[in-house]
Amino acid sequence: MSPPPSELAALREATLEQVRAALAEAVTPDRGLLQGVRALDEALEAENRLAERLARWAAEAAGAARQPPAAELLPDAPEPLRELQVAWRESGARGERLRDWLEAQAPDVAPSLAALLGPLLAARVIAAAGSLPRLARLPGSTIQTLGAERALFAHRGGGAPPPKHGLLLAHPLVRDAPRRERGRMARRLAAKAAIAARVDCYGGEPCGAELLAALGSDDPVK
Amino acid sequence: MSPPPSELAALREATLEQVRAALAEAVTPDRGLLQGVRALDEALEAENRLAERLARWAAEAAGAARQPPAAELLPDAPEPLRELQVAWRESGARGERLRDWLEAQAPDVAPSLAALLGPLLAARVIAAAGSLPRLARLPGSTIQTLGAERALFAHRGGGAPPPKHGLLLAHPLVRDAPRRERGRMARRLAAKAAIAARVDCYGGEPCGAELLAALGSDDPVK
Repeated sequence: MSPPPSELAALREATLEQVRAALAEAVTPDRGLLQGVRALDEALEAENRLAERLARWAAEAAGAARQPPAAELLPDAPEPLRELQVAWRESGARGERLRDWLEAQAPDVAPSLAALLGPLLAARVIAAAGSLPRLARLPGSTIQTLGAERALFAHRGGGAPPPKHGLLLAHPLVRDAPRRERGRMARRLAAKAAIAARVDCYGGEPCGAELLAALGSDDPVK
Repeated sequence: MSPPPSELAALREATLEQVRAALAEAVTPDRGLLQGVRALDEALEAENRLAERLARWAAEAAGAARQPPAAELLPDAPEPLRELQVAWRESGARGERLRDWLEAQAPDVAPSLAALLGPLLAARVIAAAGSLPRLARLPGSTIQTLGAERALFAHRGGGAPPPKHGLLLAHPLVRDAPRRERGRMARRLAAKAAIAARVDCYGGEPCGAELLAALGSDDPVK
């Protein structure tokens, strides 16, 4: 015997309610960071590709050697070549605006992490982890090599040396350290990033500046 | 003993003259077609990538299922998402203008081939060969599989069946033929394309319409 129509309707409504709740949970503010970081990478890639095509075509049209993409085009350059240059400039400007937006958003989503890593790098690390809650569950050693997945697989599969840093290499404390100190600095920064991510995810008091100061003060590099 | 400076200067001038001549020869009108075809393919790829990112981000921002890229954005959509939609529209419009330009150029560069294949397909075939002079040196059997290089390598290396058509599948005579007739039609069309390319390259009288008529009239498909 099938249930009466009123029970089916109630069941349907309850199911819909569950789906709505799951969606609302999925759309946390850090999702915007993830999409923004991917859109930024794609804009940079598009900009490079346009620059490459533009440089080649311009060189051929001028019968000259390779030209920089910003070089002024000859008066008789074909129209699509002019449009390539416009598209290249626009792609670059769009990337800039995306970067500005990410830098404005990241401190709202993850204030401690943004203070520790800088807002753009914080956004990249969150995006690499998939979300802020996922990042908050990762150990420092995993955060240390986020963005170096390819090198990590090469290490596991083929005996290559383990990667010492991934995205965190972009941080001044790592980047500007002497080469042989970089691995150690990346490990310490990753440990602080793990703390910052947990504080940001579970609503603690922002502590990025303190974490950064602790790193700098007892470190001979700085 | 080294030659006197006046001889060195003359040698230098002669060398430069040779380089200039080589460059002038390299910059034939068909080079523009090649660059244009590649720019068109890159514009289509960029358009697809923007559409993909836009659809995903819009769906997440709206907490809804996947959205078509042209869907109107919610009033509170983030600014970079709006810019993605603008960039997607512009990329599509740029592709359209590139296509129009290629269709206008191809009959100037290769009138017979443009009449036989249609101007856009003619431009694609010239670009796939590398240039009109190179296309004019290819046998029909190679023209038949231009654009199917991957399938051709699979055939040679791994015993896969040989490809029956590459770019030429876009021609109505091939595309609209019954499936088992397509290979034969592609072979006949490629043979005519080889003739058209030679006539265009060596400055003969345009003959595309005649070649096309010959294909159509004695073919049971049409």
